[in-house]
Amino acid sequence: MPHINVDNDLPGIVGLMRFRPETGQPLSALAETLLRNPNTLSRGERELIAAYVSSLNECKFCTSSHAAFAAAQLPEGMDLVTATCADAQRAPVSAKMKALLNVAAKVQRGGRNVTSSDVDAARAAGATDVEIHDTVLIAAAFCMYNRYVDGLGAITPDDPEGYAQTADLIVSHGYLAAVQ
Amino acid sequence: MPHINVDNDLPGIVGLMRFRPETGQPLSALAETLLRNPNTLSRGERELIAAYVSSLNECKFCTSSHAAFAAAQLPEGMDLVTATCADAQRAPVSAKMKALLNVAAKVQRGGRNVTSSDVDAARAAGATDVEIHDTVLIAAAFCMYNRYVDGLGAITPDDPEGYAQTADLIVSHGYLAAVQ
Repeated sequence: MPHINVDNDLPGIVGLMRFRPETGQPLSALAETLLRNPNTLSRGERELIAAYVSSLNECKFCTSSHAAFAAAQLPEGMDLVTATCADAQRAPVSAKMKALLNVAAKVQRGGRNVTSSDVDAARAAGATDVEIHDTVLIAAAFCMYNRYVDGLGAITPDDPEGYAQTADLIVSHGYLAAVQ
Repeated sequence: MPHINVDNDLPGIVGLMRFRPETGQPLSALAETLLRNPNTLSRGERELIAAYVSSLNECKFCTSSHAAFAAAQLPEGMDLVTATCADAQRAPVSAKMKALLNVAAKVQRGGRNVTSSDVDAARAAGATDVEIHDTVLIAAAFCMYNRYVDGLGAITPDDPEGYAQTADLIVSHGYLAAVQ
Protein backbone atom coordinates (compact mmCIF):
# COMPACT_ATOMS: atom_id res chain seq x y z
CA MET A 1 0.00 0.00 0.00
CA PRO A 2 1.40 3.42 -0.90
CA HIS A 3 2.56 5.78 1.89
CA ILE A 4 -0.13 8.28 0.83
CA ASN A 5 -3.75 7.83 -0.24
CA VAL A 6 -3.57 8.06 -4.06
CA ASP A 7 -7.32 7.39 -4.52
CA ASN A 8 -6.77 4.62 -7.09
CA ASP A 9 -5.33 1.09 -7.20
CA LEU A 10 -3.20 1.51 -10.33
CA PRO A 11 0.33 0.07 -10.08
CA GLY A 12 3.59 1.99 -9.70
CA ILE A 13 4.14 5.38 -11.26
CA VAL A 14 0.81 5.17 -13.13
CA GLY A 15 -1.08 5.39 -9.82
CA LEU A 16 1.08 8.32 -8.70
CA MET A 17 0.63 10.23 -11.96
CA ARG A 18 -3.12 9.66 -11.88
CA PHE A 19 -3.14 11.10 -8.31
CA ARG A 20 -1.24 14.22 -9.45
CA PRO A 21 -1.76 14.80 -13.21
CA GLU A 22 -0.15 18.23 -12.96
CA THR A 23 3.27 16.61 -12.42
CA GLY A 24 2.34 13.44 -14.33
CA GLN A 25 2.20 15.38 -17.59
CA PRO A 26 5.83 16.63 -17.67
CA LEU A 27 7.06 13.31 -16.21
CA SER A 28 5.45 11.31 -19.01
CA ALA A 29 6.50 13.88 -21.65
CA LEU A 30 10.10 13.47 -20.47
CA ALA A 31 9.89 9.65 -20.72
CA GLU A 32 8.34 9.86 -24.19
CA THR A 33 11.05 12.25 -25.42
CA LEU A 34 13.97 10.35 -23.91
CA LEU A 35 12.87 6.80 -24.67
CA ARG A 36 10.74 7.01 -27.82
CA ASN A 37 11.44 10.16 -29.89
CA PRO A 38 13.55 9.61 -33.04
CA ASN A 39 17.15 8.91 -31.97
CA THR A 40 20.29 7.15 -33.22
CA LEU A 41 19.97 4.92 -30.14
CA SER A 42 17.10 2.50 -30.74
CA ARG A 43 14.07 2.43 -28.45
CA GLY A 44 15.21 -0.98 -27.23
CA GLU A 45 18.71 0.33 -26.40
CA ARG A 46 17.29 3.29 -24.48
CA GLU A 47 14.88 1.07 -22.54
CA LEU A 48 17.86 -1.22 -21.76
CA ILE A 49 19.68 1.73 -20.15
CA ALA A 50 16.50 2.54 -18.18
CA ALA A 51 16.11 -1.06 -16.99
CA TYR A 52 19.81 -1.29 -16.07
CA VAL A 53 19.79 1.90 -13.97
CA SER A 54 16.52 0.86 -12.30
CA SER A 55 18.10 -2.48 -11.38
CA LEU A 56 21.13 -0.69 -9.89
CA ASN A 57 18.67 1.39 -7.83
CA GLU A 58 16.88 -1.86 -6.84
CA CYS A 59 13.51 -0.42 -7.88
CA LYS A 60 11.45 -3.54 -8.57
CA PHE A 61 8.53 -1.80 -10.30
CA CYS A 62 10.70 0.21 -12.73
CA THR A 63 13.13 -2.68 -13.37
CA SER A 64 10.28 -5.08 -14.18
CA SER A 65 8.55 -2.47 -16.34
CA HIS A 66 11.51 -1.28 -18.41
CA ALA A 67 12.98 -4.79 -18.67
CA ALA A 68 9.69 -5.82 -20.31
CA PHE A 69 9.67 -2.69 -22.53
CA ALA A 70 13.32 -3.31 -23.58
CA ALA A 71 12.74 -7.02 -24.21
CA ALA A 72 9.75 -6.20 -26.42
CA GLN A 73 11.87 -3.88 -28.58
CA LEU A 74 15.23 -5.69 -28.78
CA PRO A 75 15.75 -8.58 -31.23
CA GLU A 76 17.57 -10.53 -28.48
CA GLY A 77 14.62 -10.16 -26.06
CA MET A 78 14.64 -10.72 -22.32
CA ASP A 79 17.84 -12.83 -22.28
CA LEU A 80 19.89 -9.76 -23.22
CA VAL A 81 18.13 -7.59 -20.63
CA THR A 82 18.76 -10.15 -17.88
CA ALA A 83 22.44 -10.51 -18.87
CA THR A 84 22.90 -6.71 -18.95
CA CYS A 85 21.33 -6.17 -15.53
CA ALA A 86 23.45 -9.02 -14.11
CA ASP A 87 26.78 -7.72 -15.50
CA ALA A 88 26.67 -5.03 -18.18
CA GLN A 89 30.37 -5.20 -19.01
CA ARG A 90 30.18 -8.96 -19.80
CA ALA A 91 26.80 -8.86 -21.54
CA PRO A 92 26.66 -9.53 -25.31
CA VAL A 93 26.10 -5.87 -26.27
CA SER A 94 28.20 -3.69 -28.61
CA ALA A 95 31.35 -1.94 -27.38
CA LYS A 96 29.47 1.36 -27.73
CA MET A 97 26.61 0.15 -25.53
CA LYS A 98 29.11 -1.17 -22.95
CA ALA A 99 30.76 2.25 -22.79
CA LEU A 100 27.37 4.00 -22.50
CA LEU A 101 26.21 1.56 -19.79
CA ASN A 102 29.43 2.32 -17.91
CA VAL A 103 28.60 6.06 -18.06
CA ALA A 104 25.03 5.29 -16.90
CA ALA A 105 26.33 3.28 -13.92
CA LYS A 106 28.60 6.19 -12.91
CA VAL A 107 25.65 8.61 -13.12
CA GLN A 108 23.57 6.26 -10.94
CA ARG A 109 26.20 6.47 -8.17
CA GLY A 110 26.34 10.29 -8.52
CA GLY A 111 27.06 12.68 -11.38
CA ARG A 112 30.52 13.59 -10.17
CA ASN A 113 31.67 9.99 -10.70
CA VAL A 114 31.63 10.43 -14.49
CA THR A 115 35.18 11.18 -15.70
CA SER A 116 36.42 12.52 -19.02
CA SER A 117 37.98 9.06 -19.56
CA ASP A 118 34.52 7.47 -19.30
CA VAL A 119 33.21 9.91 -21.90
CA ASP A 120 36.30 9.55 -24.12
CA ALA A 121 35.87 5.77 -24.07
CA ALA A 122 32.25 6.11 -25.22
CA ARG A 123 33.31 8.49 -27.99
CA ALA A 124 36.14 6.14 -29.07
CA ALA A 125 33.57 3.32 -29.30
CA GLY A 126 31.51 5.45 -31.70
CA ALA A 127 29.06 7.31 -29.44
CA THR A 128 28.06 10.82 -30.51
CA ASP A 129 27.79 13.75 -28.13
CA VAL A 130 23.98 13.57 -28.33
CA GLU A 131 24.06 9.85 -27.48
CA ILE A 132 26.33 10.55 -24.49
CA HIS A 133 24.04 13.41 -23.41
CA ASP A 134 20.94 11.25 -23.70
CA THR A 135 22.56 8.35 -21.83
CA VAL A 136 23.47 10.65 -18.93
CA LEU A 137 19.96 12.11 -18.87
CA ILE A 138 18.21 8.71 -19.11
CA ALA A 139 20.33 7.46 -16.19
CA ALA A 140 19.66 10.63 -14.20
CA ALA A 141 15.93 10.53 -14.99
CA PHE A 142 15.64 6.96 -13.72
CA CYS A 143 17.35 8.01 -10.49
CA MET A 144 14.29 10.29 -10.23
CA TYR A 145 11.55 7.86 -11.37
CA ASN A 146 12.95 5.06 -9.14
CA ARG A 147 13.02 7.33 -6.07
CA TYR A 148 9.54 8.68 -6.84
CA VAL A 149 8.04 5.17 -7.04
CA ASP A 150 9.83 3.69 -4.02
CA GLY A 151 9.80 6.88 -1.94
CA LEU A 152 5.99 6.82 -2.01
CA GLY A 153 5.78 3.03 -1.68
CA ALA A 154 3.83 2.68 -4.93
CA ILE A 155 2.00 -0.57 -5.67
CA THR A 156 4.42 -3.13 -7.17
CA PRO A 157 2.74 -6.20 -8.71
CA ASP A 158 4.57 -9.54 -8.58
CA ASP A 159 3.01 -11.11 -11.68
CA PRO A 160 5.26 -10.65 -14.79
CA GLU A 161 2.17 -10.87 -17.04
CA GLY A 162 1.02 -7.36 -16.05
CA TYR A 163 4.37 -5.84 -17.05
CA ALA A 164 4.23 -7.65 -20.42
CA GLN A 165 0.74 -6.25 -21.04
CA THR A 166 1.94 -2.73 -20.21
CA ALA A 167 4.86 -3.28 -22.62
CA ASP A 168 2.34 -3.90 -25.43
CA LEU A 169 0.61 -0.62 -24.56
CA ILE A 170 3.85 1.40 -24.37
CA VAL A 171 5.27 -0.08 -27.60
CA SER A 172 2.05 0.66 -29.48
CA HIS A 173 0.93 3.95 -27.95
CA GLY A 174 3.76 5.45 -25.88
CA TYR A 175 4.06 7.02 -22.46
CA LEU A 176 1.56 9.84 -22.89
CA ALA A 177 -1.23 7.33 -23.60
CA ALA A 178 -0.26 5.23 -20.57
CA VAL A 179 -1.29 7.96 -18.14
CA GLN A 180 -4.51 9.03 -19.83
CA MET B 1 34.53 22.60 -19.61
CA PRO B 2 31.62 20.18 -20.16
CA HIS B 3 32.37 16.56 -21.13
CA ILE B 4 30.55 17.10 -24.45
CA ASN B 5 30.56 20.02 -26.89
CA VAL B 6 27.34 21.88 -26.07
CA ASP B 7 27.99 24.67 -28.62
CA ASN B 8 27.39 27.47 -26.11
CA ASP B 9 29.02 28.89 -22.97
CA LEU B 10 25.91 29.14 -20.81
CA PRO B 11 26.30 27.90 -17.24
CA GLY B 12 24.95 24.67 -15.73
CA ILE B 13 21.69 23.14 -16.84
CA VAL B 14 20.89 26.17 -19.01
CA GLY B 15 23.78 25.28 -21.35
CA LEU B 16 22.64 21.64 -21.48
CA MET B 17 19.00 22.51 -22.19
CA ARG B 18 20.05 24.94 -24.94
CA PHE B 19 22.13 22.10 -26.49
CA ARG B 20 19.12 19.74 -26.43
CA PRO B 21 15.85 21.75 -26.37
CA GLU B 22 13.82 18.59 -27.02
CA THR B 23 14.58 17.36 -23.48
CA GLY B 24 14.99 20.89 -22.09
CA GLN B 25 11.28 21.56 -22.57
CA PRO B 26 9.88 18.78 -20.31
CA LEU B 27 12.72 19.35 -17.80
CA SER B 28 11.87 23.02 -17.40
CA ALA B 29 8.11 22.30 -17.41
CA LEU B 30 8.66 19.88 -14.53
CA ALA B 31 10.66 22.48 -12.54
CA GLU B 32 8.01 25.14 -13.18
CA THR B 33 5.20 22.81 -12.05
CA LEU B 34 7.00 21.51 -8.95
CA LEU B 35 8.56 24.72 -7.72
CA ARG B 36 6.26 27.53 -8.89
CA ASN B 37 2.70 26.34 -9.62
CA PRO B 38 0.09 27.22 -6.95
CA ASN B 39 0.73 25.03 -3.88
CA THR B 40 0.18 25.04 -0.11
CA LEU B 41 3.98 24.88 0.20
CA SER B 42 5.33 28.33 -0.66
CA ARG B 43 7.75 28.82 -3.55
CA GLY B 44 10.46 29.60 -1.01
CA GLU B 45 9.80 26.36 0.92
CA ARG B 46 9.91 24.28 -2.26
CA GLU B 47 13.16 25.94 -3.39
CA LEU B 48 14.57 25.24 0.10
CA ILE B 49 13.90 21.51 -0.38
CA ALA B 50 15.57 21.72 -3.82
CA ALA B 51 18.64 23.51 -2.40
CA TYR B 52 18.87 21.05 0.52
CA VAL B 53 18.77 17.94 -1.69
CA SER B 54 21.27 19.52 -4.12
CA SER B 55 23.62 20.17 -1.21
CA LEU B 56 23.29 16.53 -0.06
CA ASN B 57 24.21 15.50 -3.62
CA GLU B 58 27.15 17.96 -3.49
CA CYS B 59 26.09 19.56 -6.78
CA LYS B 60 27.63 23.01 -6.59
CA PHE B 61 25.76 24.55 -9.54
CA CYS B 62 22.30 23.43 -8.37
CA THR B 63 22.99 24.19 -4.70
CA SER B 64 24.18 27.72 -5.49
CA SER B 65 21.26 28.29 -7.88
CA HIS B 66 18.42 27.01 -5.70
CA ALA B 67 19.92 28.49 -2.52
CA ALA B 68 19.75 31.88 -4.28
CA PHE B 69 16.19 31.20 -5.53
CA ALA B 70 15.07 30.09 -2.03
CA ALA B 71 16.73 33.05 -0.32
CA ALA B 72 15.00 35.46 -2.73
CA GLN B 73 11.58 34.02 -1.82
CA LEU B 74 11.88 33.34 1.92
CA PRO B 75 11.43 36.17 4.45
CA GLU B 76 14.45 34.83 6.40
CA GLY B 77 16.69 34.94 3.32
CA MET B 78 20.04 33.21 2.85
CA ASP B 79 20.70 32.67 6.59
CA LEU B 80 17.86 30.15 6.75
CA VAL B 81 19.03 28.39 3.59
CA THR B 82 22.58 28.09 4.93
CA ALA B 83 21.35 26.78 8.30
CA THR B 84 19.07 24.23 6.61
CA CYS B 85 21.79 22.89 4.32
CA ALA B 86 24.18 22.66 7.28
CA ASP B 87 21.75 20.75 9.55
CA ALA B 88 18.09 20.63 8.55
CA GLN B 89 16.88 19.11 11.82
CA ARG B 90 18.39 21.97 13.89
CA ALA B 91 17.50 24.78 11.47
CA PRO B 92 14.86 27.35 12.55
CA VAL B 93 12.13 25.94 10.28
CA SER B 94 8.65 24.70 11.27
CA ALA B 95 8.11 21.16 12.59
CA LYS B 96 6.28 20.40 9.32
CA MET B 97 9.25 21.54 7.22
CA LYS B 98 11.64 19.53 9.40
CA ALA B 99 9.56 16.39 8.83
CA LEU B 100 9.39 17.07 5.07
CA LEU B 101 13.14 17.74 4.90
CA ASN B 102 13.69 14.40 6.68
CA VAL B 103 11.61 12.66 3.99
CA ALA B 104 13.60 14.51 1.28
CA ALA B 105 16.91 13.37 2.80
CA LYS B 106 15.69 9.76 2.83
CA VAL B 107 14.66 10.04 -0.85
CA GLN B 108 18.10 11.45 -1.70
CA ARG B 109 19.76 8.31 -0.29
CA GLY B 110 17.30 6.10 -2.20
CA GLY B 111 13.51 5.80 -2.33
CA ARG B 112 13.39 2.60 -0.28
CA ASN B 113 14.79 4.47 2.72
CA VAL B 114 11.49 6.30 3.25
CA THR B 115 9.49 4.50 5.96
CA SER B 116 5.84 4.80 6.94
CA SER B 117 7.08 6.35 10.22
CA ASP B 118 8.78 9.14 8.25
CA VAL B 119 5.53 9.81 6.40
CA ASP B 120 3.40 9.50 9.55
CA ALA B 121 5.66 12.04 11.28
CA ALA B 122 5.16 14.50 8.41
CA ARG B 123 1.39 13.98 8.53
CA ALA B 124 1.36 14.41 12.34
CA ALA B 125 3.20 17.72 11.89
CA GLY B 126 0.43 18.91 9.56
CA ALA B 127 1.63 17.91 6.08
CA THR B 128 -1.04 16.90 3.57
CA ASP B 129 -0.73 13.93 1.22
CA VAL B 130 -0.13 16.31 -1.70
CA GLU B 131 2.64 18.08 0.24
CA ILE B 132 4.27 14.72 1.04
CA HIS B 133 3.91 13.66 -2.61
CA ASP B 134 5.43 16.90 -3.86
CA THR B 135 8.31 16.73 -1.36
CA VAL B 136 9.19 13.21 -2.50
CA LEU B 137 9.02 14.27 -6.15
CA ILE B 138 11.04 17.48 -5.65
CA ALA B 139 13.74 15.45 -3.86
CA ALA B 140 13.67 12.76 -6.56
CA ALA B 141 13.75 15.38 -9.35
CA PHE B 142 16.83 17.04 -7.89
CA CYS B 143 18.54 13.64 -7.78
CA MET B 144 18.01 13.82 -11.55
CA TYR B 145 18.93 17.50 -12.19
CA ASN B 146 22.06 17.20 -9.99
CA ARG B 147 23.26 14.07 -11.84
CA TYR B 148 22.48 15.63 -15.23
CA VAL B 149 24.54 18.75 -14.47
CA ASP B 150 27.51 16.98 -12.84
CA GLY B 151 27.39 13.88 -15.07
CA LEU B 152 28.03 16.11 -18.09
CA GLY B 153 30.47 18.38 -16.24
CA ALA B 154 28.36 21.49 -16.94
CA ILE B 155 29.94 24.92 -16.47
CA THR B 156 29.74 25.97 -12.78
CA PRO B 157 30.51 29.65 -12.12
CA ASP B 158 32.20 30.60 -8.85
CA ASP B 159 30.84 34.17 -8.58
CA PRO B 160 27.67 34.33 -6.36
CA GLU B 161 26.53 37.44 -8.27
CA GLY B 162 25.56 35.37 -11.33
CA TYR B 163 23.31 33.11 -9.24
CA ALA B 164 21.64 36.15 -7.65
CA GLN B 165 20.96 37.60 -11.11
CA THR B 166 19.42 34.30 -12.25
CA ALA B 167 17.29 34.33 -9.08
CA ASP B 168 15.81 37.67 -10.19
CA LEU B 169 14.95 36.15 -13.57
CA ILE B 170 13.40 32.98 -12.10
CA VAL B 171 11.40 34.86 -9.45
CA SER B 172 10.00 37.26 -12.07
CA HIS B 173 9.57 35.02 -15.10
CA GLY B 174 9.91 31.35 -14.09
CA TYR B 175 11.75 28.33 -15.44
CA LEU B 176 10.25 28.25 -18.91
CA ALA B 177 11.57 31.76 -19.63
CA ALA B 178 15.03 30.84 -18.35
CA VAL B 179 15.64 28.41 -21.18
CA GLN B 180 14.22 30.49 -24.01
